Amino acid sequence: MLKVALVGFGTVGQSVARILCTRTSAGLALTHIANRRVERKRVDWVPADVVWTDDFERVVSSDADVVVELIGGVDPAAGWIRRALEAGKSVVTANKQVIAQCGDGLLALAGERRRHLLFEAAVAGGIPAIRGLREGLAGDRLVRVEGVLNGTCNYILTRMADAQVSFSAGLAEAQKLGYAEADPSADLDGADARAKLAILSLVGLRRRIDVEAVPLASIRAIDPIDFAYARRLGCTIRQVARAELLADERRVLAFVRPALVPLSSNLARIEGNQNVVVVEGAFGGEASFSGAGAGGGPTAVSVVSDLEAIARAGADGHAGWPAAPAADGVEREFEAPHYARFIVADRPGIIASVAEVFSRHGVNVDAVLQEPGWSKAELPFVVTLERCSSAVVNEALAEIGSFDFHVRRPVWVPILASEGGRS
Amino acid sequence: MLKVALVGFGTVGQSVARILCTRTSAGLALTHIANRRVERKRVDWVPADVVWTDDFERVVSSDADVVVELIGGVDPAAGWIRRALEAGKSVVTANKQVIAQCGDGLLALAGERRRHLLFEAAVAGGIPAIRGLREGLAGDRLVRVEGVLNGTCNYILTRMADAQVSFSAGLAEAQKLGYAEADPSADLDGADARAKLAILSLVGLRRRIDVEAVPLASIRAIDPIDFAYARRLGCTIRQVARAELLADERRVLAFVRPALVPLSSNLARIEGNQNVVVVEGAFGGEASFSGAGAGGGPTAVSVVSDLEAIARAGADGHAGWPAAPAADGVEREFEAPHYARFIVADRPGIIASVAEVFSRHGVNVDAVLQEPGWSKAELPFVVTLERCSSAVVNEALAEIGSFDFHVRRPVWVPILASEGGRS
Repeated sequence: MLKVALVGFGTVGQSVARILCTRTSAGLALTHIANRRVERKRVDWVPADVVWTDDFERVVSSDADVVVELIGGVDPAAGWIRRALEAGKSVVTANKQVIAQCGDGLLALAGERRRHLLFEAAVAGGIPAIRGLREGLAGDRLVRVEGVLNGTCNYILTRMADAQVSFSAGLAEAQKLGYAEADPSADLDGADARAKLAILSLVGLRRRIDVEAVPLASIRAIDPIDFAYARRLGCTIRQVARAELLADERRVLAFVRPALVPLSSNLARIEGNQNVVVVEGAFGGEASFSGAGAGGGPTAVSVVSDLEAIARAGADGHAGWPAAPAADGVEREFEAPHYARFIVADRPGIIASVAEVFSRHGVNVDAVLQEPGWSKAELPFVVTLERCSSAVVNEALAEIGSFDFHVRRPVWVPILASEGGRS
Repeated sequence: MLKVALVGFGTVGQSVARILCTRTSAGLALTHIANRRVERKRVDWVPADVVWTDDFERVVSSDADVVVELIGGVDPAAGWIRRALEAGKSVVTANKQVIAQCGDGLLALAGERRRHLLFEAAVAGGIPAIRGLREGLAGDRLVRVEGVLNGTCNYILTRMADAQVSFSAGLAEAQKLGYAEADPSADLDGADARAKLAILSLVGLRRRIDVEAVPLASIRAIDPIDFAYARRLGCTIRQVARAELLADERRVLAFVRPALVPLSSNLARIEGNQNVVVVEGAFGGEASFSGAGAGGGPTAVSVVSDLEAIARAGADGHAGWPAAPAADGVEREFEAPHYARFIVADRPGIIASVAEVFSRHGVNVDAVLQEPGWSKAELPFVVTLERCSSAVVNEALAEIGSFDFHVRRPVWVPILASEGGRS
């Protein structure tokens, strides 16, 4: 019988306790619940012999076999996980920031102490992607991991696509439904997905990347009109988190940003606040894992699945994952076709001016698209660019942005057409 | 170092050997290759010390730690797997028929001998669904497993939907592309998907079901016109294999049949010859796993992932899965809204006659749909029925089928709208 101490009794912690107390599981016993000001957290549906405490030290010195860390944030969580491992306990955590920033060191410590450190719930709760990459596809050599890893962004983007709501209206809806926090910056601007991507790189590509080195672009610049143009191109728009092992097998290309993706792709098919993880293997091609991605119940399922894995292996067993080498660096720039959208006060010569700048930067314009029915005072049009470097597009757009005909700042996103499923 | 003997050196066996010989894997060594008339199979890219043999007894008496069974079919494969386990070897197999028909007994034998018996490749090659259900979602209590488990059927159905090709033209294409065998009955009529469904029930629902008791309906009756009507209903058509734990937790509802599924569902989103496995858990809701589902490379990845799992656990370790109890029986009938399509030589009173039969059986007609532009000599129309028992629809259709106005036999399929994702 594996003795389980829950540290953090919020939404996920309560859901974990519910499963442990409801389900007939031979191998797991909830023994401790720790939380700040624990008295206000007490519930009557856990067994009477569970120890309630607001003192983490009491958990460390207890006879619990596994500590489930659900407090979130790097500090004090990282230190507590370290303390628990040093005290000979296995650890299950849903903490993406801790694993993204210090996962490799903590895994090494767990290895030394021959204890488990599992974190299925840190990426896409309820979707067994970590185990899928580590074990289910262990027979392949994965070369790309990517996903729609932030349900808040995906909810807003699909609402913009389906109901033409503005970005701010979509965000307000997401906040009302509890999908977005009061300060949604980490979701919208990519920091949340970036931490998850670093974990997928560690587990799937077996490369440790510096989280801070992964470039971000916000979805705040996306407008409902972009979905109309995307659809003409057979695409929709997603916040894509992608990490790709470069041919030298040392460097990792990584980014989190809005991108056009083909309507038939695995990334496009995920709607609402769902998540998907897509992987490409050298031998097996593309596979994908999708589901809720967040929420108390799904995240708790991932936590309890990790507990079950420890129970199966025995508390003294140790998963023994080889340490992942650090990537030689994160490549920030990539080649792709691109989409650039302008909203201008129309006058003759605008397209010529734009085309001249692209031409001077060696970028070929593929097509110019203009939907009818807009006022000349605020006229949107789109330029698609043939495959070229993101760095060059950035430079060209900076130059084009200095013209005086813009009503809004120009926006560009890559068209990730290479990710198109194997069918 | 785990010594691996390959038994069966066809497409999948060769792909497994390729991965073992190409990839740097510390823990796995290919030592034996067995095949009938093995001389014609010899290749020069495996290490010179690999033993080639056409005698399975030589594998049994060898020092190989794991036998990979890739010959297919129940006989002699089931006996060989038993022999290998009895000889103290672990077994990895891609053999869906053996696991569906005698998996529980073989798992019990493996347990007694403390050896592994793994079969990730038996369902949806390249998609780690078995491990996902067994381990990744071990923390949940799964109540439904279903999927698009036959790539041949899905290829034909998506071609009918996208290019309005006839069933027979779609089948001919699939055969030309190597997706369908010369005798495609097992694919089209459901026996292939049924074996995979029995395995998903064993692993996901933890209930053993009698494969032969699962009712089948063929996709041969589906016509391109059904996709036009399905689309009007917000649906498409898939060969759906579903197993659902009934409320008594003892009986399992199961079937393999064509069904209307909402365009937004996980089942509808899988196109071409791909596979998807969708599960619903009591705590975590719906999750899905998709990918190639077949082919040498993807199937080999599943086999090698099983080998890696054995290497990690150590050859003497044993996964120790509890035996699954037999279901009290397979429930063949279910309640759902239904779609019935008729092609008739038109004359007054047909709809009245049809409606009268449904009414007499207590079935409420929801809508009558008729696309314009068809000849009165061969006029298709569709009746949608409110939620009712499949048994009653069957009875009513049998009676309606005896009328003399039919140009083709009537077709009915359920509308599986309850499976609609959690978004």
